[in-house]
Amino acid sequence: MSGSEEIGRRGIMLVLSSPSGAGKTTLTRSLLEHDENVVLSVSVTTRDRRGSEIDGVHYHFVTQRRFEAMRNGGELLEWAEVHGHLYGTPREPVERALAAGRDVLFDIDWQGARQLVKTMREDVVTVFVLPPSAAELRARLERRAEDSGATIVRRLRNAAEEIAHWREYDYILINRDLDESFARLRAILGAERLKRVNVPDVERFVEHLLADLKKLA
Amino acid sequence: MSGSEEIGRRGIMLVLSSPSGAGKTTLTRSLLEHDENVVLSVSVTTRDRRGSEIDGVHYHFVTQRRFEAMRNGGELLEWAEVHGHLYGTPREPVERALAAGRDVLFDIDWQGARQLVKTMREDVVTVFVLPPSAAELRARLERRAEDSGATIVRRLRNAAEEIAHWREYDYILINRDLDESFARLRAILGAERLKRVNVPDVERFVEHLLADLKKLA
Repeated sequence: MSGSEEIGRRGIMLVLSSPSGAGKTTLTRSLLEHDENVVLSVSVTTRDRRGSEIDGVHYHFVTQRRFEAMRNGGELLEWAEVHGHLYGTPREPVERALAAGRDVLFDIDWQGARQLVKTMREDVVTVFVLPPSAAELRARLERRAEDSGATIVRRLRNAAEEIAHWREYDYILINRDLDESFARLRAILGAERLKRVNVPDVERFVEHLLADLKKLA
Repeated sequence: MSGSEEIGRRGIMLVLSSPSGAGKTTLTRSLLEHDENVVLSVSVTTRDRRGSEIDGVHYHFVTQRRFEAMRNGGELLEWAEVHGHLYGTPREPVERALAAGRDVLFDIDWQGARQLVKTMREDVVTVFVLPPSAAELRARLERRAEDSGATIVRRLRNAAEEIAHWREYDYILINRDLDESFARLRAILGAERLKRVNVPDVERFVEHLLADLKKLA
């Protein structure tokens, strides 16, 4: 089947939230690797770049002044302050991707998710990733060499805060097994794509179909 | 992962509608073969049994009197009269399957779909299967040895009537390729299952998770 036969559609805003250590980053990376129609929304932030991070890939690192100019100019779809740092989602690349039928993945917390749902409900699908257990969450955080003991305790506390918002999400993924969770995530995306067929295109398709049926019957 | 670790959920009522010849029957059969959690809702009807049909498998064949008793006794989830024959969906097996977490597949027309949505909105997911073109629909009907020329013309007219209701459905599947359509149907079912996790079970899961996190952090 050639691409031109396909019914066009607007892209989906797929929001993934979870406490850190639940597997969200791995799921994000797998989805971007396996599905070339999905692009990642890169947030802007005022926090310092970490050694492993690349400007424009992990975040756009900006000054507080630049961030505030974007926010006040309506250039951000959502923003939040977390531990004294500002984070936000630039509007323009998202709008452009959706109009081109590409899906945009958001790796953001419940505050950002809530704002996106408020401003873009028709386009947004939200998924909350839960760890299988508290012990497993701690074990995963400990396996990451980068975090100190104090950081792990802080992350566990933040996890509880984030998890408290699970009810606000469309889908819940309990991440017991990465392959299984990834298959489920793809099923969510596949199904939502079928929902968001471009209605004017289907209208046109059905119109032709009915006209042709009339000629045949 | 053992079954007992899974979060329980109520089953889904998956409604498939389409004009005859669009591939709905093949999709239905494939789904029942590949997914043992799905059961088919068997309708009752007052029309005569055809040679190839088995009572209790394709339909429950009943008298007009028995049908009316079921309908008046509230035993039918939906019913309709089509070409002078009565068709209906018995309530009890559906309720039993949903409560057991099994998904129930319905191969019914737009009239039945509309009634199910009205009475069971929370449980119902509706999918409309469209043929790729009018010419292909006729070709498929002609390949079926069972239909005479007059029947084919009638089916094409009925197809137009059925297709006119596509807007009432949650999902639209344009059936260009059976394997692809089947994969899409499974994606829809997979995603909807994740939506219908049993909320009291997730509540309990999260409650334990948060209590355990508190102990660790």
